Amino acid sequence: MHEVKLICQPANSSELKIEATKSYGAEITFVQNAADRLSKCTEIARNLGATLIPPFDHRNIILGQGTVMYEFLNQIKEEYQTKLDAVIIPVGGGGLLAGCSTACMNSGTVVFGAEPALADDCFRGKQCGIRQKLQRTPTTIADGLRTEVGEVNFPIIQKRVEAIFTVTEQQIAMAMKIVIERLKVVIEPSAAVAVAVALFHEDFKKVVERDGIKNVGIVLEGGNIDTGSYEKMMPWIHLKDSSP
Amino acid sequence: MHEVKLICQPANSSELKIEATKSYGAEITFVQNAADRLSKCTEIARNLGATLIPPFDHRNIILGQGTVMYEFLNQIKEEYQTKLDAVIIPVGGGGLLAGCSTACMNSGTVVFGAEPALADDCFRGKQCGIRQKLQRTPTTIADGLRTEVGEVNFPIIQKRVEAIFTVTEQQIAMAMKIVIERLKVVIEPSAAVAVAVALFHEDFKKVVERDGIKNVGIVLEGGNIDTGSYEKMMPWIHLKDSSP
Repeated sequence: MHEVKLICQPANSSELKIEATKSYGAEITFVQNAADRLSKCTEIARNLGATLIPPFDHRNIILGQGTVMYEFLNQIKEEYQTKLDAVIIPVGGGGLLAGCSTACMNSGTVVFGAEPALADDCFRGKQCGIRQKLQRTPTTIADGLRTEVGEVNFPIIQKRVEAIFTVTEQQIAMAMKIVIERLKVVIEPSAAVAVAVALFHEDFKKVVERDGIKNVGIVLEGGNIDTGSYEKMMPWIHLKDSSP
Repeated sequence: MHEVKLICQPANSSELKIEATKSYGAEITFVQNAADRLSKCTEIARNLGATLIPPFDHRNIILGQGTVMYEFLNQIKEEYQTKLDAVIIPVGGGGLLAGCSTACMNSGTVVFGAEPALADDCFRGKQCGIRQKLQRTPTTIADGLRTEVGEVNFPIIQKRVEAIFTVTEQQIAMAMKIVIERLKVVIEPSAAVAVAVALFHEDFKKVVERDGIKNVGIVLEGGNIDTGSYEKMMPWIHLKDSSP
């Protein structure tokens, strides 16, 4: 049993993430980009005799992230004696969405993906049936979803996800504000993307009405935001029309 | 059974509180100050044949707020099969502290109060045994604790609370930052006051060591903060030495 705490972390990670990683006792190796990360991780894994699992486009990631939905469905059943009619899951690299949609098989729960309109490769891919590239480096505030959907993940999403809905930057910021101010839960913009679909997307509302959807589950998949980020997002957060 | 939703709210409440009150379906009567509030509430109560209960200095408030601790103690017992050795409760008007300390009677849980150093009337009162006035209108960021401790509440606190600890504005802001960034729970500065005692107060640490205190409970009694407030608190929140 190893007790190893070696973390490869991007050198441009938020100060919060770096501080948090350190405070949990990790020894950090900073990496400059994806290629640098892969080579450093491969070396560390080789030295330790460990298995390298990439960050999102891998069968084991799908299996691991799928346990989120497995627990979610069980909790709803045990604690509330009901079921989820639908779930909305954010999609960047697609590991979480592929995993959650797999966990929902034969459960009667319909799965929807949520994507920023500024990084809509999965939405476009699902429309035409072929995995799409991002047209440019995405600038969306939902920084966790700037990744292209992975090639292992895409066919699973294609098969098991009902539809992908995209939302604007303004809708993401408004959803984030509502969750923080009303639910008192700190979420990052990437998590707010799925909330924005539930609150604001006209096509989602039509589906809800058409199919008689009542219980909608949302995975709030991250809260890695430092208090300084609010300041940067002020132009978005302080919108006049911020009420749903 | 009445279904009345009439709320008297200070005209200078935060925009967030006013918006939230409206969105829950309330009909708001704005009031200018404490005297105005009392006269308008008295009139409304008379018209409805209702009972007027003041905001903090009243037996029924103590009983109601004490249920927080009643639930807390039970939850710890049932879900974690353990007990709280101590609890830290913020004190402004003192209704919550009087109620919680009453609920802790005969439970073996020691009760401590937490107060901003800039509004330390309860701390000073407990030292000399006589309820004290605030020396000036407090400017603490913990706006929920700017009130003087009530005359009904003070003797109960005097009898049932072990000690009051005061913390600085900087400690309050640092505690708030830690809770928001690490626990992902939105709290207002008034709630952070009790966290600050647990994290930073030297005398509290000594008591913990001396008495072998292990499980400490904290009531996070409010999250009424609008995202704009972060901006105003920036000078406090962005302190270099913000790690505990």
